[in-house]
Amino acid sequence: MAFIVKKKINGKDYYYLRKSVREGNKVRAVNIAYLGKTKKDAEEKFKKMEKKKNSMENKNVKKADYESTDISIEDMTNFCKRKGFVYPSGDIYGGLAGFWDFGHLGVEMKKNLKNDWWKFHVQEREDIVGIDGSIITNPEVWKASGHVDSFSDIFVVCKKCKKPNKIDKNELGKVKCDDCGGEYDEETAKEFKLMFKTNVGEDGFAYLRPETAQLIFTNFKYVQENARMKLPFGIAQIGKAFRNEIAPRDFMFRSREFEQMEIEYFVDPKEKCPYEIGDSEILVYSDENQEKEEEPKKMKFKDALKKGVIKTDWHAYWLEQELLWFVNLGANSDKFRIRQHTKDEKSHYALDTWDLEYKFPFGWKELQGMANRSDFDLSQHQKFSKTSMEILDKDEKKILPHVVCEPSQGVERGFLVFLFDAYEYDKERDNVVLHLHPKLAPVKVGIFPIVKKEEMLKVAEDVRDDLKKEFNVFYDTGGSVGRRYARQDEAGTPYCVTIDGDSIKGKDVTIRDRDTEKQIRVKIEDLKDVITQGLRGEDIMKMGKMVDTRKK
Amino acid sequence: MAFIVKKKINGKDYYYLRKSVREGNKVRAVNIAYLGKTKKDAEEKFKKMEKKKNSMENKNVKKADYESTDISIEDMTNFCKRKGFVYPSGDIYGGLAGFWDFGHLGVEMKKNLKNDWWKFHVQEREDIVGIDGSIITNPEVWKASGHVDSFSDIFVVCKKCKKPNKIDKNELGKVKCDDCGGEYDEETAKEFKLMFKTNVGEDGFAYLRPETAQLIFTNFKYVQENARMKLPFGIAQIGKAFRNEIAPRDFMFRSREFEQMEIEYFVDPKEKCPYEIGDSEILVYSDENQEKEEEPKKMKFKDALKKGVIKTDWHAYWLEQELLWFVNLGANSDKFRIRQHTKDEKSHYALDTWDLEYKFPFGWKELQGMANRSDFDLSQHQKFSKTSMEILDKDEKKILPHVVCEPSQGVERGFLVFLFDAYEYDKERDNVVLHLHPKLAPVKVGIFPIVKKEEMLKVAEDVRDDLKKEFNVFYDTGGSVGRRYARQDEAGTPYCVTIDGDSIKGKDVTIRDRDTEKQIRVKIEDLKDVITQGLRGEDIMKMGKMVDTRKK
Repeated sequence: MAFIVKKKINGKDYYYLRKSVREGNKVRAVNIAYLGKTKKDAEEKFKKMEKKKNSMENKNVKKADYESTDISIEDMTNFCKRKGFVYPSGDIYGGLAGFWDFGHLGVEMKKNLKNDWWKFHVQEREDIVGIDGSIITNPEVWKASGHVDSFSDIFVVCKKCKKPNKIDKNELGKVKCDDCGGEYDEETAKEFKLMFKTNVGEDGFAYLRPETAQLIFTNFKYVQENARMKLPFGIAQIGKAFRNEIAPRDFMFRSREFEQMEIEYFVDPKEKCPYEIGDSEILVYSDENQEKEEEPKKMKFKDALKKGVIKTDWHAYWLEQELLWFVNLGANSDKFRIRQHTKDEKSHYALDTWDLEYKFPFGWKELQGMANRSDFDLSQHQKFSKTSMEILDKDEKKILPHVVCEPSQGVERGFLVFLFDAYEYDKERDNVVLHLHPKLAPVKVGIFPIVKKEEMLKVAEDVRDDLKKEFNVFYDTGGSVGRRYARQDEAGTPYCVTIDGDSIKGKDVTIRDRDTEKQIRVKIEDLKDVITQGLRGEDIMKMGKMVDTRKK
Repeated sequence: MAFIVKKKINGKDYYYLRKSVREGNKVRAVNIAYLGKTKKDAEEKFKKMEKKKNSMENKNVKKADYESTDISIEDMTNFCKRKGFVYPSGDIYGGLAGFWDFGHLGVEMKKNLKNDWWKFHVQEREDIVGIDGSIITNPEVWKASGHVDSFSDIFVVCKKCKKPNKIDKNELGKVKCDDCGGEYDEETAKEFKLMFKTNVGEDGFAYLRPETAQLIFTNFKYVQENARMKLPFGIAQIGKAFRNEIAPRDFMFRSREFEQMEIEYFVDPKEKCPYEIGDSEILVYSDENQEKEEEPKKMKFKDALKKGVIKTDWHAYWLEQELLWFVNLGANSDKFRIRQHTKDEKSHYALDTWDLEYKFPFGWKELQGMANRSDFDLSQHQKFSKTSMEILDKDEKKILPHVVCEPSQGVERGFLVFLFDAYEYDKERDNVVLHLHPKLAPVKVGIFPIVKKEEMLKVAEDVRDDLKKEFNVFYDTGGSVGRRYARQDEAGTPYCVTIDGDSIKGKDVTIRDRDTEKQIRVKIEDLKDVITQGLRGEDIMKMGKMVDTRKK
């Protein structure tokens, strides 16, 4: 059963919905939803949740009409640890700030996320190929890129709460403490280099790459020639990057080791974007909006381009593509906006920068920063390496291509977006249901023999052995079926298959849908095909005879 | 055309088969096969290659009766760079010894290799789940594991050729220079720490993990509980590791940054291995063989266990599994052997260690070291972290599990094995053919409209857009069809689809098989299914009407 509790944090009240959870032999209370700062808010929210649950109509829609439950980043951290998504790295030694390990569910979800990103951005496109560069490379790379000289933050300490924090160079004297609103001490402020440095060989040194992008630039000519690419084209890369953040925080949102999924997209600046910009809408928060302290406005990408809010067609195109990637994988489009960098915050090399932002429990935060880097990087490497980076344009003239856009996504930030949007505390089930898109779900199918009878186990094991060649499955014989469902709902498993007494003769089984809890009966020989359809996002509840679950 | 050339290296003669290769606008001669050290050897080898090619009978067998062509590691390095598999990292700045970047083909092949490893070892098994730990973790981990104190090599310099090298601690005074056979200078020999160290935060430090294994041990309890694992079970991980090698060499074989695919397999030492050991044969090179200077003996794993050569059932089981993984993915089983560590070379913690070795052009080398680590690691972490690592055995008694085996494979070493086994210089085609298993191939299908006519391009683009949702395809309209085939043969692409004049009305296309060069005609609507079958390893040349290619 769930219950409302009050928590005091830094002297303020916060209301949470809690429930008891069994962990091995222990029972422990965990927060399952944040309800607000006053008792009234909490009770209203609680009622709303109850009402929503009781009005579950529209039974024919595949996805349950769920609304994700607001939880704090701390509660998401705890949920991830409790279920085996993410642990603090080296936790038995007290961990290390800014480093995280992915558990048995997290590793699968992360793999699915990266594979889908690659499929969307590389495999399905003609104009993008991938590379996989090393984390440590020749340190000259980071001189040319400007990182050795200028990749640093300002280290500050709050005069009031004494917590250390980082600010950008141009923020000194302008911003207040994130935690308590106090003043930062300007006298003790100092520059803090963000690249990790290490020894190499007997007396050499090198850096851990602070971004994947530069490996794309240094290999630019090889890749263009070997893959026979013609402008406009992109080079994609997924891999780790490291930044010695002064104050890692917000779970995996700001960590010291993270993974990037990045594209550098090269164009001939004389040419227009040949791709169509679609009809998707998003909240647009321009430089002007911010200056005038106006609210962001919802508009279509193509209208934002027409009105000159977004300045280049490439920016509009890629910002829309990135939103579409998220939404196609199950994210809630209402929680996204694009925000233009103001004149003050723009990087030295960038002509125009837009961030794709998401509304986290701790505020609107950057998911992707898309800068128009012009030919800054290629010309720097051309200069430092004395190697021509020019290639032929369509008139066979040598030009230095421009990077109009770099759709670059932190894997962990994407991971958090999908978790927050998928997380629902379902009051009726008295359990968390993780409505992950089937493509992202760590486990695709739970397989449960109802009871441990030899004949039934034999059928269940055959089903398991057949399905696991295609999908990640979890075979579970322990506890009541209800409890087994609950465990898989929390893990985000879209389908559970139960094998019962009738399965032995009838050679059929029941498939239960995570979101709607509907069940259908299908022949074992059709099981693989039916589930394959479901994992593509189709409604499989029409593909078998509906089971009346009221009998339960 | 190919021709024989002589090369002098360190005063010795080496004979190679060379050919001219077009690269962009340049033509360059590259070595395509190593032929031997004398002119006579070279001519005989050349004849043999010719004879083999002319006796291509057995036309019904799916795989061409190819024999991989011997090439040196240097030539493989060049081939990989020329085709876009692997580049020296930061090459425009002169690279950095021991660091490599994967190009547009390499990244795909590496991804396929890792995905197949994960499918075989994790997805398809009930007893193994994965994690993904961070590269930097709490430095106490490396104290507990023993790496801080003793993970080092001896740095030596050859008195004769002056080259630096590394040797193990117990080899000082016993081994000679790898390169020239000279004596190592014992006076200047010194200990050399292999872990990369870096700064973290304001004044902390940490190490780049030198192996992935320890992250499995530190998370052991969480994973066991969250994934509800019962002994025997394993935890798998794929990820980067770093070692500051004194003398990186042999392309990616010994590099400073590399990727591991690792399993730590935990058992109750009282219990036997429940899995059957199969009938596979391998060359077995026991401690005793090595001591008596005998040749390794070919035997079945189960016989080696029965005869007591391999001491534990778990070792026999896992060594066979690992061989099977390689062979199922297209490696040549004749080039593998298992070698027992001699008493001198065994690690301090290991009860018994067997290496799975492969015959590289530079000798038999380790692919996997499988140590029986007993409870060394878990007990160290239990001691250092003061956290119990005990779990329940099947009688519900607390025990500290043993690691009987750690099937751990370097991704790059596996990558090299598959490349060497797949590489054939086909004299008839006068071209390299990379006979990669379709699962490993970076590109699955080449799609070629025969000529650039609008109607034909339209059909070809539709085929491309349909197939690329499922597979990695390469669409190529440039140059003669023969040249387009040749490029894909070198990239290891198993199938090429040509769209010709008849395709427009007939709605059918030609599929050409890389290995046999056979061609069949299939309906466009069946194309996806036919290729899917082929990628699973089935002979699709029976699934359509054979095209008589003699007409060409």
